Amino acid sequence: MINFALLGAGRIGKMHAALIAASPQARLSYVFDSHSPSAVALAESYGATVAESVDVILQDQSIDAILIATSTDTHVGFIIQAAKAGKAILCEKPIDLSTKLVTDCWQQIKDCNVPIQIGFNRRFDPTHATLQGKLTAGEIGELQQLIITSRDPDIAPAEYLRNSGGIFRDMIIHDFDMLRFITGEEITEVHAIGSTLIDPKLAQFGDVDSVMLTLKTASGKLCHINGSRRCVYGYDQRIEAFGANGMLQSTNPLPHSVSMSTPQNTASHSPLNPFFIERYQQAYQAQLSSFINCLINKTAPSPSFLDGLRAQQLADAAQQSLDTGLPVKLA
Amino acid sequence: MINFALLGAGRIGKMHAALIAASPQARLSYVFDSHSPSAVALAESYGATVAESVDVILQDQSIDAILIATSTDTHVGFIIQAAKAGKAILCEKPIDLSTKLVTDCWQQIKDCNVPIQIGFNRRFDPTHATLQGKLTAGEIGELQQLIITSRDPDIAPAEYLRNSGGIFRDMIIHDFDMLRFITGEEITEVHAIGSTLIDPKLAQFGDVDSVMLTLKTASGKLCHINGSRRCVYGYDQRIEAFGANGMLQSTNPLPHSVSMSTPQNTASHSPLNPFFIERYQQAYQAQLSSFINCLINKTAPSPSFLDGLRAQQLADAAQQSLDTGLPVKLA
Amino acid sequence: MINFALLGAGRIGKMHAALIAASPQARLSYVFDSHSPSAVALAESYGATVAESVDVILQDQSIDAILIATSTDTHVGFIIQAAKAGKAILCEKPIDLSTKLVTDCWQQIKDCNVPIQIGFNRRFDPTHATLQGKLTAGEIGELQQLIITSRDPDIAPAEYLRNSGGIFRDMIIHDFDMLRFITGEEITEVHAIGSTLIDPKLAQFGDVDSVMLTLKTASGKLCHINGSRRCVYGYDQRIEAFGANGMLQSTNPLPHSVSMSTPQNTASHSPLNPFFIERYQQAYQAQLSSFINCLINKTAPSPSFLDGLRAQQLADAAQQSLDTGLPVKLA
Amino acid sequence: MINFALLGAGRIGKMHAALIAASPQARLSYVFDSHSPSAVALAESYGATVAESVDVILQDQSIDAILIATSTDTHVGFIIQAAKAGKAILCEKPIDLSTKLVTDCWQQIKDCNVPIQIGFNRRFDPTHATLQGKLTAGEIGELQQLIITSRDPDIAPAEYLRNSGGIFRDMIIHDFDMLRFITGEEITEVHAIGSTLIDPKLAQFGDVDSVMLTLKTASGKLCHINGSRRCVYGYDQRIEAFGANGMLQSTNPLPHSVSMSTPQNTASHSPLNPFFIERYQQAYQAQLSSFINCLINKTAPSPSFLDGLRAQQLADAAQQSLDTGLPVKLA
Repeated sequence: MINFALLGAGRIGKMHAALIAASPQARLSYVFDSHSPSAVALAESYGATVAESVDVILQDQSIDAILIATSTDTHVGFIIQAAKAGKAILCEKPIDLSTKLVTDCWQQIKDCNVPIQIGFNRRFDPTHATLQGKLTAGEIGELQQLIITSRDPDIAPAEYLRNSGGIFRDMIIHDFDMLRFITGEEITEVHAIGSTLIDPKLAQFGDVDSVMLTLKTASGKLCHINGSRRCVYGYDQRIEAFGANGMLQSTNPLPHSVSMSTPQNTASHSPLNPFFIERYQQAYQAQLSSFINCLINKTAPSPSFLDGLRAQQLADAAQQSLDTGLPVKLA
Repeated sequence: MINFALLGAGRIGKMHAALIAASPQARLSYVFDSHSPSAVALAESYGATVAESVDVILQDQSIDAILIATSTDTHVGFIIQAAKAGKAILCEKPIDLSTKLVTDCWQQIKDCNVPIQIGFNRRFDPTHATLQGKLTAGEIGELQQLIITSRDPDIAPAEYLRNSGGIFRDMIIHDFDMLRFITGEEITEVHAIGSTLIDPKLAQFGDVDSVMLTLKTASGKLCHINGSRRCVYGYDQRIEAFGANGMLQSTNPLPHSVSMSTPQNTASHSPLNPFFIERYQQAYQAQLSSFINCLINKTAPSPSFLDGLRAQQLADAAQQSLDTGLPVKLA
Repeated sequence: MINFALLGAGRIGKMHAALIAASPQARLSYVFDSHSPSAVALAESYGATVAESVDVILQDQSIDAILIATSTDTHVGFIIQAAKAGKAILCEKPIDLSTKLVTDCWQQIKDCNVPIQIGFNRRFDPTHATLQGKLTAGEIGELQQLIITSRDPDIAPAEYLRNSGGIFRDMIIHDFDMLRFITGEEITEVHAIGSTLIDPKLAQFGDVDSVMLTLKTASGKLCHINGSRRCVYGYDQRIEAFGANGMLQSTNPLPHSVSMSTPQNTASHSPLNPFFIERYQQAYQAQLSSFINCLINKTAPSPSFLDGLRAQQLADAAQQSLDTGLPVKLA
Repeated sequence: MINFALLGAGRIGKMHAALIAASPQARLSYVFDSHSPSAVALAESYGATVAESVDVILQDQSIDAILIATSTDTHVGFIIQAAKAGKAILCEKPIDLSTKLVTDCWQQIKDCNVPIQIGFNRRFDPTHATLQGKLTAGEIGELQQLIITSRDPDIAPAEYLRNSGGIFRDMIIHDFDMLRFITGEEITEVHAIGSTLIDPKLAQFGDVDSVMLTLKTASGKLCHINGSRRCVYGYDQRIEAFGANGMLQSTNPLPHSVSMSTPQNTASHSPLNPFFIERYQQAYQAQLSSFINCLINKTAPSPSFLDGLRAQQLADAAQQSLDTGLPVKLA
């Protein structure tokens, strides 16, 4: 039985709490949130204790693991504290918006030898993971081209996005991780183009809302990502792997599988999932199971802290390409 | 917070335990199983107490509801006990294989006035429920024809099926309930044909493994059910509603949404779900939520005990048609 | 090169003319229509000669084959004339609405030994034919259940339908032929139910607009047909074959394969084909090719005159079941 | 009635001959091919005359239009001859591999004022054309991103490809035309990456077999093309248009619409069409109808000669980007 403390009782914290409670191998012992009433309500729902401070949790020897689901700017601090207290860590992504801060964090924790997993949950999505599994098993032969479609349901206000780090660090970072996960290679060249087709105000601070990238892997495979900040038909997340012996497509799973035939058309399906909590529900569950199994079996969790760092470096390179109009090579 | 006692710690009991644990509005207080080690293991996983006997549960005033997930022949006994103890009841279907026993049970409990819900979980499946909702909302106009496909993944041994009550009472009973749920009408005429195309040994005791039925509702709508005891490609559960202004189809939701293109074909999808636990996972969760909400809001749960009884009467009529070769009319 | 004479220059005659003109192995030599301007216009489009009478055609030794696309009540007369003149015959279905007339016709022509093919064009549809081919090749093992969905886009006026012979002889007759074609067996039992859910005026002359049938083949396979005179979303023609090792579905081919994603739903496709000329265009072409190949290779065309007769007998049995409310057995 | 002469009796010439023969508004009068037996056989199939030389055709006043389906290097010569003889021209694409030769040709014919249409047949494909039509009608709002997938079934031998002009001029040229057709804008920037993942011998002469491009239109719309010389699962031709109010996808139409369910997966469909003759059969037919209607109605055919020229300029720019590794801007 793995005893968890949960930091953060917001929307995503609630989801993690229910997943821990439903697991026959885990127990939710503490909930911490700087907004105390949220922590109290969530703790009560699952018979957990409210932690007055994070220190209480760090000093409790019965606690095995800390799930960090607080705001991004607090991640690095909590990671360092938890690692030094010898707790296993499952931290929501991104680690931080600054590649420098992430690198510094790594210097401080790399010798702590605690299990640490970064919440790139999409790797655990049954559909994406099936594609990766079939590809790795050789079912379509050698991979030649990989195409990722990444469209958020709606754009945040320009004022909010001004401090987001830009579309590559804030949003496309997931897709950089998926590229590495699926190709099993490092990316060596990035070229990005972009436009403000949705909210022209983004141009004021050099950001765009619509992007297309081409990327090359070390062995010469060709990759493409297209991304949009607003997709009116829902959260559109697809991957296409084209190989020497066939093609695999990870299409959007739908909330229900009803189709309707009318004089206008013959098969209108469900709307897409509205956003990531619904779309990646099973992924979050599988991510937690994987983390718990690593702790029980004493194996290293994945994706690792360094996976988090590398995705960030790709985001930096994409931003540079967009700024200069030229392709950027990576070591 | 609704306090639950769970009777039965088998495969389906474990699933119900996890669903109760994950609910922020429910708590799993007791687990009872005549096989004590199963009860112990399950209770420990979720911090519940093992009940030495059902009486302990019935006498505990803090228990609000009893979820009956034991073998079919114990349902009627537990229902009567729980109803007399004033506990709310969520009972797995079927109530019993004998229509007479079910009717007698009703006589004994109808004045207890406890909330009771029968586990026809398919009514809560997001896909089937969406079809029913759109139909009821008039999206395809007046219903004219309803077609249900009901195929189990594999046939049980003939020796087991000998005591199953026959294919209509054991298996197609769910589909009779769905017919009533979706049409919103009573069935007035049933005609059934059948064959033993899978296991000829069933003929020894008058059972069949492949059936087709046509049924008419009170207002003249036409219904069809086709059923098979063995479907090699998985658990095939579909509904098609044909109306004056369009058609709705509840197709099989798939475990993942990967497609693969090869020289043989362009889109090979996921296999179907293997069986009901996987297929109707969301339905079981929604069923529990609905039951909990009824208890909290003091409204009557549905499907009711009488819905369970009526499905059984349709199964009896279908068996009579198969035996005589003639259509059977119902009052 | 096969020289054709075409009888009938209406909508379906025009389609046949274009198909003959496009074939590198056939030439359209004559067009005959009792409405002379239609014949003139069509003959001119394809460089053919207008036949003043059918006799001109029958006496022209250069003519190999006669394609009969005139109104149903003229078929039997033209078949007998053409057979006695030694011409090969491709005749639109049905042969006639009266089983007796068809039987009499057979008596008169069976010794003429001319190639004769009945226009059950659906057998040549690439999609239906692929299903039949895969089934026959054993790809899903032994067939157990066969389900045909047959829905016309719109109902004709009651006054017209009064003389149509009823829904089974006028419309479902195609599906009886497909049952025989796909199962490769004779039907031994028919049970039909029906309602007037679309046009209540049909009840005045004992007809219905919505039907469901269950049928059994000689070896005990179970079949179902559902039919409707009005399907608002187009011409819906599907076949599902359920076998010991899998399932084959012949779904509706669509005029185009564009899908659209909107906030309401994720994949709205093309409307269905409006009716049989569009839906079965490729089938008509393949039907003609098959007939031409039989003439060139001197093999017997199929479906045969007797296939036409047997479909009619099944329609008679279905009508009897609807009238009596009882299943009907066939020899 | 439009009288056609056909130059070229090869595979594509035969297809054009059948399409002309089937049209009620056209007649095939002459067939010319430098390989005389091919011309004789094809002329006989459709009752046409064999032309001993192209001059015979050019001097025959009854001939309205010339369809050029000979090898690419003869196109420019025949176009100039036909234009000077005042004949309407439907010419297979590409006009020529050399942009300079195409430009020179235009100088010679632009004052002849004959109707001339270039065979970018994909514009007439029912599926692609429906996408373009819905987009133009505003059904998904303003276009933001356009993605074209273009994969040939198999690669030609390196020796043949050495003189093909390279992948952009030989193959992707169609997709450049589709980008212009669908966006309704000129392309202002092209960036291309490529690899030899299929046949390493192509590197000997600077060609690649796998490419990805990003392109920007005058108004800032983002476009992506991915192309491959070998696609084992067939001829894969898809277009996705992402707009402010929705998405349109032109997916691959299939030869039949049978699906099969087995223990491995639930819906294996038809293979793709093998190559362009099968895939774009309806497009070729609609292309011919459009050309005939323009001649009858005396309107200008489209796509025009200049459309052919512009696609070629885009291919040149893509080649330059691949060669230099840098984006290329177009006037």
